[in-house]
Amino acid sequence: MAKKSAGGTSEALKKLKVRDARTMSKLVELADDVAKRAIAGKEPRLDVPLRTRSNTNWNKKRGILEMGDATSERELFNLNQAKQFMQTMVHMSNIKELIETQKTSSLRSLFYAAKHTIEGTRENTFDDQDESDPILEDIEVTLGALREELHIFAENRGGLIGNITIVDKGDEIDCRRLGSSGLMIASIVEPEIIQFKKCEADFVLHVEKGTVWNRFNEDRFWEKHNCILTHGGGQPARGCRRLLQRFNQELKLPIICLLDCDPWGHYIYSVIKQGSISLAFESTRLAIPEAKFLGIRSKDYTECKLPDSVKIELKETDIKRAKEIMAYPWFQDHKGWQKEMQRLLDNGFKMEVESLVKRGISFVTEEYVPQRLKAKDWLD
Amino acid sequence: MAKKSAGGTSEALKKLKVRDARTMSKLVELADDVAKRAIAGKEPRLDVPLRTRSNTNWNKKRGILEMGDATSERELFNLNQAKQFMQTMVHMSNIKELIETQKTSSLRSLFYAAKHTIEGTRENTFDDQDESDPILEDIEVTLGALREELHIFAENRGGLIGNITIVDKGDEIDCRRLGSSGLMIASIVEPEIIQFKKCEADFVLHVEKGTVWNRFNEDRFWEKHNCILTHGGGQPARGCRRLLQRFNQELKLPIICLLDCDPWGHYIYSVIKQGSISLAFESTRLAIPEAKFLGIRSKDYTECKLPDSVKIELKETDIKRAKEIMAYPWFQDHKGWQKEMQRLLDNGFKMEVESLVKRGISFVTEEYVPQRLKAKDWLD
Repeated sequence: MAKKSAGGTSEALKKLKVRDARTMSKLVELADDVAKRAIAGKEPRLDVPLRTRSNTNWNKKRGILEMGDATSERELFNLNQAKQFMQTMVHMSNIKELIETQKTSSLRSLFYAAKHTIEGTRENTFDDQDESDPILEDIEVTLGALREELHIFAENRGGLIGNITIVDKGDEIDCRRLGSSGLMIASIVEPEIIQFKKCEADFVLHVEKGTVWNRFNEDRFWEKHNCILTHGGGQPARGCRRLLQRFNQELKLPIICLLDCDPWGHYIYSVIKQGSISLAFESTRLAIPEAKFLGIRSKDYTECKLPDSVKIELKETDIKRAKEIMAYPWFQDHKGWQKEMQRLLDNGFKMEVESLVKRGISFVTEEYVPQRLKAKDWLD
Repeated sequence: MAKKSAGGTSEALKKLKVRDARTMSKLVELADDVAKRAIAGKEPRLDVPLRTRSNTNWNKKRGILEMGDATSERELFNLNQAKQFMQTMVHMSNIKELIETQKTSSLRSLFYAAKHTIEGTRENTFDDQDESDPILEDIEVTLGALREELHIFAENRGGLIGNITIVDKGDEIDCRRLGSSGLMIASIVEPEIIQFKKCEADFVLHVEKGTVWNRFNEDRFWEKHNCILTHGGGQPARGCRRLLQRFNQELKLPIICLLDCDPWGHYIYSVIKQGSISLAFESTRLAIPEAKFLGIRSKDYTECKLPDSVKIELKETDIKRAKEIMAYPWFQDHKGWQKEMQRLLDNGFKMEVESLVKRGISFVTEEYVPQRLKAKDWLD
């Protein structure tokens, strides 16, 4: 058993120090550059990579969304940019303190830490958090350092149970022994924090919602089918996506998704698989190109002999969203997905995972998923 | 170590069977009564206790909200009630199946299970879940059986870590060894499912949000101050409230709440302490009359020497809400709370827990909470 320690195992701690030293030197270098320009009488400025759709490229070979090379200048002596320039500097200074004191902070706390009225004026550095979060993402891309490396965390979201033992900050956690509760998925799940130990699982079943996860856990699906069972509480947070990717890359486990048959479920799958536009700079660390979509499929209404009461009529916004998704380059060339989405539109209705209860309480865990897994009947 | 078992320890299983037999006999008795009336040529009907503000009483002696004795008749041969009568019967029938098959189900799944088009008509039993959930609450109060006893669960929500070992469905979980992740708080935490083993904790610190919980966990507050650390992810769900109550009643642990200084935080505290109107029938099982409100307090702006940037201006709705809370009978006689709320109104601004970061990243865990605990400076 790993030695108990607040900070983690000594090897992990060593790695953490190396990582922090690297982030710190990037931070200081950037700040030094700004200072040098100022001292030399030049205008202080930063080059910030653009996190826009136009600067997002689809890398067909790798199967992920990537950020392009375009940047925008952020200058101090520019009325449109001065505030953002100053905001960037304030946040960088607070992040430096976080790394120095070996603490992490939430987005909300960092907003508060940075928020103040500028001396001698009535101007606030930040008025609300919506201004603050994008600046932190700018710092991520400018430094080429991820949120975790900047010591920023979000909420622990999503849950996990199954045939694996993990070590989390030095605590060994047997995920086979977590009863009806399960482990919360932490916001920061990097190898320096969480290590994988014994794992017998053959795959990961990722479901959209906590209540569906409860159904699978109650039926001990993960034990019977030798897997890890996760949920993201809706759209999975970065921590959940990163953990799934690590299961896939390091443990070579297939990631099988069970989501609703609606454009929202398809979007969740798309983000898990290829990444998102707003976090394209993170794709190599988050995207799982070989993630599989097991269901619910638009054919299931007939194939599972479901009654009409499972139908939820598509709204205008659903139809619009479905057409947008069909036009994503990564879905455009995929015959299976085009057919799936077209059938959804032809059906005129969406279906939720929970609707399978019409075939029996445990139909989803005892028949639907096992049969589809056996037949390898999924989209990927 | 407890024997590993999907169902739990044998003693817990035995208790579960006794509970289920009791619920089942109530269900069958009610259904029999309806059938007998029908066969005797009388109108089938039910008496459903009223879950309204007017049927909610403040039990000053016990310090909790209670449901009164008023009921309303639900008749089959009444155009206004026929649909609800039928809905109640459909749900009762499905709940019977849940108990017989020893499964539990989410509110969403039960909605689907009950939803169908009535033969020979175009009428649906239910159109959406908003119709279905209140009927399930009606069944709870009519049978005098709680949601858990009807085998209904919600999402696992909230998190836990700290100096306690629990047994959850037979799995022994050392809550001192859960790293940065923590345990999800299950939806059903009754003694038949979750038992407490070794506990050294002196109290429970309950915080509002997961990100604040992360701050306390990272600083190992629960280890340094020998407690259990929980969060509810905002307004705590029934599972979280019930677990807190069990910690309080069975382990005699004080429940200390750290919530935002705004009417929402005060409402959360009020619900934890006295119960809510909509769940007044559950108060004896959920309310914790001796729960304490440690902060954030309206005096903290001056007492903690906070800068102006922590102020969030009260909106009209906040002021209205604050006045409503001041008029709650359980706050009306409480000088401390009247003073607290009046000062909030006089201040004209609210404050969040995260704003204490202005005094340093770990001010809240290393100074604020320890000092207040030591001085027993809280409202209760």
